[in-house]
Amino acid sequence: MNRRGFIKAASIASLAMALPEKIFGFERTAASTAGNSASQAGPDRGVLSLPGAQTTGSTRGIMLRFAPYQLSLRHSFNLASGSRTTTPDVQVEAVYDGIVGYGEASMPPYLGESVDSVMRFLSKVDLSGFSNPLRLEEILEYVDAVAPDNNAAKAAVDIVLHDLVGKLVGRSWHELWGLSPENAPETSYTIGIDSEEMVRLKMTEADPYNILKVKMGLDRDRETIEIIRSLTDRPICVDVNQGWHSKELALEMCHWLADRNCLFVEQPMPKEQIDDIAWLRERSPLPIIADEAVKRLADLPACLGAYDGINIKLMKSTGLREAHKMATTAKALGLKVMIGCMTETSCGISAAAQLSPLVDWADLDGNLLISNDRFEGATIQNGRITLPASPGIGATLLL
Amino acid sequence: MNRRGFIKAASIASLAMALPEKIFGFERTAASTAGNSASQAGPDRGVLSLPGAQTTGSTRGIMLRFAPYQLSLRHSFNLASGSRTTTPDVQVEAVYDGIVGYGEASMPPYLGESVDSVMRFLSKVDLSGFSNPLRLEEILEYVDAVAPDNNAAKAAVDIVLHDLVGKLVGRSWHELWGLSPENAPETSYTIGIDSEEMVRLKMTEADPYNILKVKMGLDRDRETIEIIRSLTDRPICVDVNQGWHSKELALEMCHWLADRNCLFVEQPMPKEQIDDIAWLRERSPLPIIADEAVKRLADLPACLGAYDGINIKLMKSTGLREAHKMATTAKALGLKVMIGCMTETSCGISAAAQLSPLVDWADLDGNLLISNDRFEGATIQNGRITLPASPGIGATLLL
Repeated sequence: MNRRGFIKAASIASLAMALPEKIFGFERTAASTAGNSASQAGPDRGVLSLPGAQTTGSTRGIMLRFAPYQLSLRHSFNLASGSRTTTPDVQVEAVYDGIVGYGEASMPPYLGESVDSVMRFLSKVDLSGFSNPLRLEEILEYVDAVAPDNNAAKAAVDIVLHDLVGKLVGRSWHELWGLSPENAPETSYTIGIDSEEMVRLKMTEADPYNILKVKMGLDRDRETIEIIRSLTDRPICVDVNQGWHSKELALEMCHWLADRNCLFVEQPMPKEQIDDIAWLRERSPLPIIADEAVKRLADLPACLGAYDGINIKLMKSTGLREAHKMATTAKALGLKVMIGCMTETSCGISAAAQLSPLVDWADLDGNLLISNDRFEGATIQNGRITLPASPGIGATLLL
Repeated sequence: MNRRGFIKAASIASLAMALPEKIFGFERTAASTAGNSASQAGPDRGVLSLPGAQTTGSTRGIMLRFAPYQLSLRHSFNLASGSRTTTPDVQVEAVYDGIVGYGEASMPPYLGESVDSVMRFLSKVDLSGFSNPLRLEEILEYVDAVAPDNNAAKAAVDIVLHDLVGKLVGRSWHELWGLSPENAPETSYTIGIDSEEMVRLKMTEADPYNILKVKMGLDRDRETIEIIRSLTDRPICVDVNQGWHSKELALEMCHWLADRNCLFVEQPMPKEQIDDIAWLRERSPLPIIADEAVKRLADLPACLGAYDGINIKLMKSTGLREAHKMATTAKALGLKVMIGCMTETSCGISAAAQLSPLVDWADLDGNLLISNDRFEGATIQNGRITLPASPGIGATLLL
């Protein structure tokens, strides 16, 4: 882990007293107050990090602190749409009544957000007017109205507030949602589109997982599956990322994959081809899951008839609150629910994992794909998501 | 209020030590343990009442205690389907770790449950296997599987557990759901089907309310509205209780009511006439709300196209947990949400009121229609629901 730049709250507070204000970018009194109370509060109440963070709000209400953080990928990430070795990310903290909550925005470029756009959005969010963080509905309605889109930036605020509220109440979110952690599903481990050598290497990393997720949509789809099938019989989830363009090819592939112990096919065709997807769904032996087609709750009703289920990701949904509503609504409508992620630290992953006892399938390996995680939280044990009992989103800053 | 039979926990506990076990119907050690811890716990943690209650479970896990309680109506209650002066009810308590939660089942006869059926159902519910009341999802899944139907009995268990969990966590349910109590809507006051003299009398009782609810579906529909309109211009919600049988009559009435400042029409025709209701909805100037047509979450998708909204009642929905899911799903599907009630004590009404900041309209006057309320909780101030800040469902036993 990259530990540079992450200092205990107490150190920040004392540094803030001694150094010019602009180095830290937040008001000295507020920082020292927040730092002191956080450091008194014990590990469950969180500690400040992010020196040099920008801030909004004040410690009289809820103060937000945020700073860019580039995620380093263990392997270059190849999708139908391109390849990369880092993911831009913004880390966020909320300070309220001596408690520090954590959140993050992860911005894989294809979603249209960037460090700049997220920092710009967060600098407009002023939570000093909200005296009770538990009022998540009205606070997040305000956040949603600050600017359109910016879903990852909104998710960062949502996650940080959920962490704060859970710590205030002294309970984890899976508890507050009434869920049993034993019901958390197995999670899949992602094998990207890669050379045979890399696929074989990743297969050894995937050893602790009972389900594999394979990215498809380039020209080596069958080859990748055949390499994996030469090594293991473990069930495979297939994510096409809109990579197939003909419904006939998609149907042929669904049959071929069904014969090879595949569980479902995610976003087989471009989301705009909804009639083709509905045609495929009627004929496919495998369930068809929406990913790119469903970001937020409002996108969900249109999935009926075209998809068998949805893949919820916090960075698409604007966070946990809307994700929970999406899972509830999808289940009520007879849709399967999957929870996925971007490459994220264990902060975002642990937040998403809180919802996992509600879902049919989980794909929460984004923290395992990076080499500079700042947190520990939800872990994988025997292929299954294991939720920490700690309050909030269950993420602890690595110091 | 009828105070006979409601004794402080400490008195029950000491009586239980002195008197034969069968008088109290619960195990002596359990009762005294529970009584002692509850009496140490202070008012927010609840106190035991219900001497002679039947019990299931044990204080090692969650103990349920329940006893019949007949609600006396202030006025005889006239509906399209009949008339009555009492409502059968079963009061329920849950005891866990020195905390007492409250719940109830109210059984207006047309819903098919009775004191006997509720007591029989509750005697089969054994929560001793659940060591953590926060795991509402798995506990209520178990309760739902104990026997089919029995929705009011299931609601009683759901409410008592929500009260327990809220008290354990130290928060009200509107807080745990992230809602702001200021968003609780105005509630309507119900004017039944009655003589002109009685309608005039009830109108004076309705004075603090800004919205009236008028029961229809007998032969004096227009007359009742005209009497009310001679006295006030306040908006009226109309509840037909399936009383109209012709779609043409229903449409004519909707137009007539729209001209007289009515807000919506609830369950205009028998729920089986769903095609006629869809026909009416396409043409009606007023929104058409489902009541008898929607009990539980599974009934909701069929409403799309036939209704503009749903009336959620805890005694239909099996309680708060499913009611919250119904409200979430309905809003996601663009349906309006109303929360209603049966004649209930302030226990059931306060529980339902916790959800009210989520809804478009509320009709939570069931406690005001009875003369022997055992609780205080949510109140009406200037026509608006006012939620207590106390943890759980916000109901305090009147001692």
